[in-house]
Amino acid sequence: MAPQRQLKVGILGATGTVGQRFIKLLALHPYMHTHVLGASARSAGQKYIEVVKWKQVTRVPEDIAQMVVEECVVNDKWKECDLIFSGLAEGDAGEIESAFCAAELPVFSNAKNHRRDPLTPLIVPLVNTSHLSVLPAQQAARSLQRGFIVTNANCSTTGIVIPLKALEEAFGPLDAVIVTTMQAISGAGYPGVSSFDIMDNVVPYIGSEEEKIEWETSKILGGVLADASGFDLHAQSPLRISASCNRVPVLEGHTECVSVSFKRRPAPSPEEVKDAMRRYTCEAQTLNCPSAPKQAIVVHEEVDRPQPRLDRDDQEGAGVNVGRVRRCGVLDIKFVVLSNNVGIGAATSSITNAEVAHAKGIV
Amino acid sequence: MAPQRQLKVGILGATGTVGQRFIKLLALHPYMHTHVLGASARSAGQKYIEVVKWKQVTRVPEDIAQMVVEECVVNDKWKECDLIFSGLAEGDAGEIESAFCAAELPVFSNAKNHRRDPLTPLIVPLVNTSHLSVLPAQQAARSLQRGFIVTNANCSTTGIVIPLKALEEAFGPLDAVIVTTMQAISGAGYPGVSSFDIMDNVVPYIGSEEEKIEWETSKILGGVLADASGFDLHAQSPLRISASCNRVPVLEGHTECVSVSFKRRPAPSPEEVKDAMRRYTCEAQTLNCPSAPKQAIVVHEEVDRPQPRLDRDDQEGAGVNVGRVRRCGVLDIKFVVLSNNVGIGAATSSITNAEVAHAKGIV
Amino acid sequence: MAPQRQLKVGILGATGTVGQRFIKLLALHPYMHTHVLGASARSAGQKYIEVVKWKQVTRVPEDIAQMVVEECVVNDKWKECDLIFSGLAEGDAGEIESAFCAAELPVFSNAKNHRRDPLTPLIVPLVNTSHLSVLPAQQAARSLQRGFIVTNANCSTTGIVIPLKALEEAFGPLDAVIVTTMQAISGAGYPGVSSFDIMDNVVPYIGSEEEKIEWETSKILGGVLADASGFDLHAQSPLRISASCNRVPVLEGHTECVSVSFKRRPAPSPEEVKDAMRRYTCEAQTLNCPSAPKQAIVVHEEVDRPQPRLDRDDQEGAGVNVGRVRRCGVLDIKFVVLSNNVGIGAATSSITNAEVAHAKGIV
Amino acid sequence: MAPQRQLKVGILGATGTVGQRFIKLLALHPYMHTHVLGASARSAGQKYIEVVKWKQVTRVPEDIAQMVVEECVVNDKWKECDLIFSGLAEGDAGEIESAFCAAELPVFSNAKNHRRDPLTPLIVPLVNTSHLSVLPAQQAARSLQRGFIVTNANCSTTGIVIPLKALEEAFGPLDAVIVTTMQAISGAGYPGVSSFDIMDNVVPYIGSEEEKIEWETSKILGGVLADASGFDLHAQSPLRISASCNRVPVLEGHTECVSVSFKRRPAPSPEEVKDAMRRYTCEAQTLNCPSAPKQAIVVHEEVDRPQPRLDRDDQEGAGVNVGRVRRCGVLDIKFVVLSNNVGIGAATSSITNAEVAHAKGIV
Repeated sequence: MAPQRQLKVGILGATGTVGQRFIKLLALHPYMHTHVLGASARSAGQKYIEVVKWKQVTRVPEDIAQMVVEECVVNDKWKECDLIFSGLAEGDAGEIESAFCAAELPVFSNAKNHRRDPLTPLIVPLVNTSHLSVLPAQQAARSLQRGFIVTNANCSTTGIVIPLKALEEAFGPLDAVIVTTMQAISGAGYPGVSSFDIMDNVVPYIGSEEEKIEWETSKILGGVLADASGFDLHAQSPLRISASCNRVPVLEGHTECVSVSFKRRPAPSPEEVKDAMRRYTCEAQTLNCPSAPKQAIVVHEEVDRPQPRLDRDDQEGAGVNVGRVRRCGVLDIKFVVLSNNVGIGAATSSITNAEVAHAKGIV
Repeated sequence: MAPQRQLKVGILGATGTVGQRFIKLLALHPYMHTHVLGASARSAGQKYIEVVKWKQVTRVPEDIAQMVVEECVVNDKWKECDLIFSGLAEGDAGEIESAFCAAELPVFSNAKNHRRDPLTPLIVPLVNTSHLSVLPAQQAARSLQRGFIVTNANCSTTGIVIPLKALEEAFGPLDAVIVTTMQAISGAGYPGVSSFDIMDNVVPYIGSEEEKIEWETSKILGGVLADASGFDLHAQSPLRISASCNRVPVLEGHTECVSVSFKRRPAPSPEEVKDAMRRYTCEAQTLNCPSAPKQAIVVHEEVDRPQPRLDRDDQEGAGVNVGRVRRCGVLDIKFVVLSNNVGIGAATSSITNAEVAHAKGIV
Repeated sequence: MAPQRQLKVGILGATGTVGQRFIKLLALHPYMHTHVLGASARSAGQKYIEVVKWKQVTRVPEDIAQMVVEECVVNDKWKECDLIFSGLAEGDAGEIESAFCAAELPVFSNAKNHRRDPLTPLIVPLVNTSHLSVLPAQQAARSLQRGFIVTNANCSTTGIVIPLKALEEAFGPLDAVIVTTMQAISGAGYPGVSSFDIMDNVVPYIGSEEEKIEWETSKILGGVLADASGFDLHAQSPLRISASCNRVPVLEGHTECVSVSFKRRPAPSPEEVKDAMRRYTCEAQTLNCPSAPKQAIVVHEEVDRPQPRLDRDDQEGAGVNVGRVRRCGVLDIKFVVLSNNVGIGAATSSITNAEVAHAKGIV
Repeated sequence: MAPQRQLKVGILGATGTVGQRFIKLLALHPYMHTHVLGASARSAGQKYIEVVKWKQVTRVPEDIAQMVVEECVVNDKWKECDLIFSGLAEGDAGEIESAFCAAELPVFSNAKNHRRDPLTPLIVPLVNTSHLSVLPAQQAARSLQRGFIVTNANCSTTGIVIPLKALEEAFGPLDAVIVTTMQAISGAGYPGVSSFDIMDNVVPYIGSEEEKIEWETSKILGGVLADASGFDLHAQSPLRISASCNRVPVLEGHTECVSVSFKRRPAPSPEEVKDAMRRYTCEAQTLNCPSAPKQAIVVHEEVDRPQPRLDRDDQEGAGVNVGRVRRCGVLDIKFVVLSNNVGIGAATSSITNAEVAHAKGIV
């Protein structure tokens, strides 16, 4: 294999929770390396180690520690980048990402701001990288050659769409999905959830999270219009989805209890469902993307798995874990999903999306 | 009002988690007082304070501390009791409770052993105290005059049947119920759940819990046969129920996310549902039972309530708290229930059942 | 006993953690009632229930819920008060409390701002209410008739000075104290400690806390100068104190491991120490202050007590719990203290101080 | 370097918490591999995967999963081992380890049973591997050629003796040590601490832990008698040590607040202490033992470190982390130590001890 050209990467929001995860993952990446770190104007001009509240369990990589932080404003340094990852919080993300895109930089974003845009792909890398085919339409609309925005999904959506995609591939369209989430506090960023609110407690509400799951799922599981001018939003076979979102005292890893019904009659059996999940593969895997997991969906037979503390780091959090696949007394099948909200649910998602885009020659 | 005759009460399993709660509640009871404390043969003959690992946040009542513990074998001391509460674990409960019943003692049990018996009432005191009418049939079958067994439900069942009963009373039979529970560790007794298993974790499995919820709900929400010879098990309008049970790092208070559909079309609106829950009253309240809550179902309008830490002690845990009543995208209505698993979910349930029985002249 | 005149009380910082605790305690108080609620300009003019994030396990008292919040600026309403409690955070507390004092209102403050003032008493109500005798000097210096400021101590100081005072009363001056604290997250207010920082963790640092313990202890355990013109700061027998402060994942209740040495030789035995602690009484008790605990120091014989979850609500958190009194291999005696940081460590402290002042005719 | 001969290793207590950690560490070891797994008679004859409750965050190594478990009784399979690691609990450890030793197998034990034996080394690998020189005396007394027992220390002792050793090496004998521990629940094995006891709580007592710290420290920091016939137990300069041990809601990593005084006057400054700790190296490092950390003591300058969640996995938990080195107002210097109780505190300790013994030709 020819030596891989190194890609220069810029990170918007580099001091935040997701930004730190980008840095940690890129430190080990075979062909992407961190070229610019972007943070608020207040931090700009200082060394990264001086402005970050590093919360990872590994040390700050030494070369990153000494890098001088830039403001999140396009300049010559940013323009040297092959691509941009954005870990910005939603307050700032919209405008900044648009500006970087307009400067002909490919932006892979974790923020919610552009997810609903009719020309912006919302991609879970183990599910719908085919949606990258809409990028020419996005660039045409913006008169851009190279710049674009690709978003990835909300962390709680990501966990469920992977097994749901496996089910639709194997058994045809789903009819209905009811999901109850038990989400980790790291999903809220830092400082995020007050310890006073969550210790010895469950908070049965996460602002706008249920709407996100319900809306994003249809965009992600849906296809691309025939002329690649946009997304079909699962329109031919509308999905009924109902989500109940809860915050629980867990550091990392979202657990979700899912019940589904199929259009197909008879519905598949639990054994068929498990088999379909285990066999499921995606484009990120066939393209040998380095951040793609070996197994997209790990299916457990143990009666009490997956569990966030024990399974969130399996495959470095790049796949999802499913367990307890069994019949549902109301819908057809129910199961438990565990996904790493800061792995496949955030930074790993963006990086894998970029790897797929790179493998396809888009970046 | 004439002064109330004091009732002598015996407690089986007095050193366990539920037994301690019985002692704590009875210390303040207007007309029941603890007469005998029963524990294992190993503890018998010693003072309660010497054998109990007291885990309540109030001190052991002084008179109880000095009481000598008896073995759980019927003797003259036990026979002086007007009624027996059983906080025994399931291993021993079946035979011991049967023996006490056979000795003509009314037994109110928290254990699961007799719940499925076709002549034994399974009573949630805010729901189906009318099932006491089957006791004559039970006594006849056993040739008893005064002895009987009444069980109360599993703690996770108790939480949901109260609002479900309110809905059936107001809107007719339910069609389907999907519930995901997030259950407190105190539901598993002591030592119960290892800290190593639950800290920073969710365990998506509780042995036989889902089956209990699915089965018990039909017995509790069902009626009594016309000749009071048994229970109709909701047979005319079978309920479809699907439960997913999880253990979460919470000390006390089970949180349950519930979606329901109604037979009735159109289904009631969220406002009608909240109104029906708020108006719901039960026999334990109309009979002025001292342990019945003032409000059976407290409905919250705050977007993020109920929460176990903040709401589990409301009304001393004798009612249930409901919040987030809203439309479900798959079934009709969804909401969150919070019930105190050691209050209405266990000891308070037994005591209120006994109060109703007493008010009706059965004990 | 003649009916007690009702005192009108104003609460500065009424929406914060300590402010909420004042409201909760005063709702049950025999002769103080809440007359004004003060909060930020942003909240002023609205009903309390609309602006507070109520975090107590009991509901907001109904009359308080409907009260309109005032700004923390002296006006006619505030002037109707007999006394003021301040739960303000340190940023605002200094100037606001001074302004209320200057308006001839007696202020009992939880904030740190005035604690080091040479004419301001720093009072732990179970220890040094005798320091109120300095108030005439404070008023003279400020040309005030009725206004004054009394502070209470930092929550971690409060826990240890009570048993230390008992030891000095019984055995004469202490020589040295080494204390390691394990402090609850509620000590940091709301939102306070991020769950991301404290879940499954210990933070071995609390800003300026160690200095507070070391400094405050000498002022509190010291006496008043002969002419009541100030405090002697334990000057005749300087105390050597070393504190190590840690935050632990506990909601309420500070646990502190203390080792002490005495000037007296031979040092008292563990039995003598326990006896002295049990016999210790203070002025707030002899004056029958309603918020004073029955027992100032509860001494445990159980090998594993006190524990925050089990003992923090004993006597409504108005006393302290001590256990594990034993010889220290380096200093003389070591023991464990548990004090409720939002009870005796904060709001209860201020209220009891005011009760003592009232009993002495000062308010 | 010549290819390293592979050593065959047997693990006693292979299904327990420490046993699992041995398996996990040995799966990656350059020259030791797991040859026999020993567990209770009840598990013997079954595959490891069928009898273990695996609680590690990585999967069971595939070859280990399929190994058939042996009883902990010497047989031909066990005799093929070059050395034995024991993760047995104290109930069984004494006799079983003695039997394996008597069968001429070198045993490296985590259990406490043989630690006080006057001929058995109690070794913390970063401190006193020189104590291996007593093994000939041990073997002579037992008439053995190859069998021996080496123990490692209690997990809470291990954390502090490493920095204390660094201080004695640099500044001469210590005079006194006061330590307060905040210990993780994993130190108690599995199921260990009930969640009901530790959630939202601190337990200020761990059975016999304080005595262990106080006793073990003198043996470990002491030397070997001139004729290598035993240990001098720091007799020439007796250490005064006082420990207060607490269990806190942390999964892994013991935090310890330590105050020390030196015989030397003047005492070293905080800067000198930090420098001495950073410069400290040990025999396991100079012998290039693969499990020894690169840096024995990592000294933090950040004001709020070390913290268990962030620092326990630094260097795979093979070193210790020290922070907050500062003057103590009573003794001379105080600091915070964080050590991984299942890393250097247990399995890593045994393995490194074995590596040193191997490097010295003893196994």
